[in-house]
Amino acid sequence: MPHIQFPEGLPGIVGPFAFRPETAKPMRALAEILLRGPSTLSPGERELIATCVSTQNDCYFCQTSHGAAAAHHFGGNEQLVSDVKQNFETAAISNKLKALLAIAVKVQQSGKKVLPADIERARHEGASDIEIHDTVLIAAAFCMYNRYVDGLATWAPQDPALYRQMGAQMAEQGYIREEARPRAAGAAARNE
Amino acid sequence: MPHIQFPEGLPGIVGPFAFRPETAKPMRALAEILLRGPSTLSPGERELIATCVSTQNDCYFCQTSHGAAAAHHFGGNEQLVSDVKQNFETAAISNKLKALLAIAVKVQQSGKKVLPADIERARHEGASDIEIHDTVLIAAAFCMYNRYVDGLATWAPQDPALYRQMGAQMAEQGYIREEARPRAAGAAARNE
Repeated sequence: MPHIQFPEGLPGIVGPFAFRPETAKPMRALAEILLRGPSTLSPGERELIATCVSTQNDCYFCQTSHGAAAAHHFGGNEQLVSDVKQNFETAAISNKLKALLAIAVKVQQSGKKVLPADIERARHEGASDIEIHDTVLIAAAFCMYNRYVDGLATWAPQDPALYRQMGAQMAEQGYIREEARPRAAGAAARNE
Repeated sequence: MPHIQFPEGLPGIVGPFAFRPETAKPMRALAEILLRGPSTLSPGERELIATCVSTQNDCYFCQTSHGAAAAHHFGGNEQLVSDVKQNFETAAISNKLKALLAIAVKVQQSGKKVLPADIERARHEGASDIEIHDTVLIAAAFCMYNRYVDGLATWAPQDPALYRQMGAQMAEQGYIREEARPRAAGAAARNE
């Protein structure tokens, strides 16, 4: 049961987003830029970074929904996502993405864990400064989203079909939308 | 030395904000709403939550700048900030804020650490649902900001006078502003 009362039936982060549309707006905007905005990393690669960090943070809702979004970007290849979650170093992804994922999982532990050697490895594999920047920020941002989802004990559905549907929607339509049900009339009025 | 090249002389998070104005905008907006937006928690109380989480994450720039902002809100009471950082349970703050800080430092470890008993304690001390929500999100958000600052090895000045000045500016003028020096002409053009 969630720690505070959200509108009924909204899974994961969607509940707190509807409860507090004021903070949902910049949080949605940040996800949209990082995961779907213009970038030399594909949206699928960026969803894999989000999925790995959410897996390290043991956030079921985020790792499953973003894993489904990643799979959708990779033509429905759920095996690839599963391989990356288990051991990205041996998965069928580029050496550049492996080096970026190595940075991301260090950021998940602590920013201070990222060493010059990690950056050198990424550069050696062809990563640009902005790709390194965005990797660090995707990892940092999912340390926020994951804690937001679990720190409020939100509802995580278990049905895989639901996550496939969610993942496809996230991949195709993205992260920016008006909250379905604002917290209260007062909140709605403030947003107009 | 920072892991990637930022405009010279910008401390802490200001460097990456100038490097990537597209992501800076929602990150600044989120900080403004959480720390200075309408709330039944005072800005000083919210800066104390940010300071405690940044201290747990061992982020020197964030704990010192937000600690200075907190002290500014509390009439320059740096001792109070120092007491809260050392042990908030014995500091001269309200029982409600102590209960909220207890939630925040659990979120810093993992969202899953927050138990119903932590929420009950906060409610017993008079915390509302939205105060609990905002506490969880401030703690989660600073797990992002701290990792962003340290994961890119940004520059943290050591001069306490500089942090006092920064803290006063953060407290009085807030977090929303145009980035001083955009990454490149192309980035500036995209923002126009």
